[in-house]
Amino acid sequence: MNSDETAIRAFVETWLQATRAGDVDTVLDLMSDDVVFMVPGAEPFGKKAFEEAARKHADTRTEVVGEIRELRVLDGWAYLRNHLAVAMTMPGGETSRRSGYTLTILRKQPDGRWLLARDANLLAPD
Amino acid sequence: MNSDETAIRAFVETWLQATRAGDVDTVLDLMSDDVVFMVPGAEPFGKKAFEEAARKHADTRTEVVGEIRELRVLDGWAYLRNHLAVAMTMPGGETSRRSGYTLTILRKQPDGRWLLARDANLLAPD
Repeated sequence: MNSDETAIRAFVETWLQATRAGDVDTVLDLMSDDVVFMVPGAEPFGKKAFEEAARKHADTRTEVVGEIRELRVLDGWAYLRNHLAVAMTMPGGETSRRSGYTLTILRKQPDGRWLLARDANLLAPD
Repeated sequence: MNSDETAIRAFVETWLQATRAGDVDTVLDLMSDDVVFMVPGAEPFGKKAFEEAARKHADTRTEVVGEIRELRVLDGWAYLRNHLAVAMTMPGGETSRRSGYTLTILRKQPDGRWLLARDANLLAPD
């Protein structure tokens, strides 16, 4: 495993841990300012919309289990396919479960950090 | 527009035209042997499963309109975000319509041709 691959695996682990912890600021720091998120049946959205949704659901408890199925590092870019299982529990107690795959494109910054640049999220309700 | 970008735009046009024409062989020639297709709520699948499904629906008339929203050529790789509107009409006459976005990763071959390598299809029923 080369250093880029190690760094990207650590990136994914940080993303998942921050998501579990409800640490929106850390998650936002892991994406580029021009990030594009894509989900089924909706228009793509960017960092601002991600942040608004995340802060609105700040009191939702999120459990997430991720498993990288493919990771390919290119020249300053990488793509990965991840399998995610997400359980979100609202303050009222109701839990919704979704699972499925993502196709994610990451870009290496001049300072060596990797950031999420494009993300297609194919998760569906269990 | 550089020559890779021109080639990829022609690639997409060929894919769409072959899809409209029901020309499965041409579409298969546009993907790598290790291609991975991802759709919501299902396991990823490869070239063989794509071919089986396409041949099973050989008598379905397909209209498709595509519009490239983003195309970025990297070093021997590219990604593109496409918006597709698809109408499939069964021999009985019923038409189903889906639309939405794809996130696609293409890879340049040693002979200079571009092939589809990974595809996340986020289309949803209209």
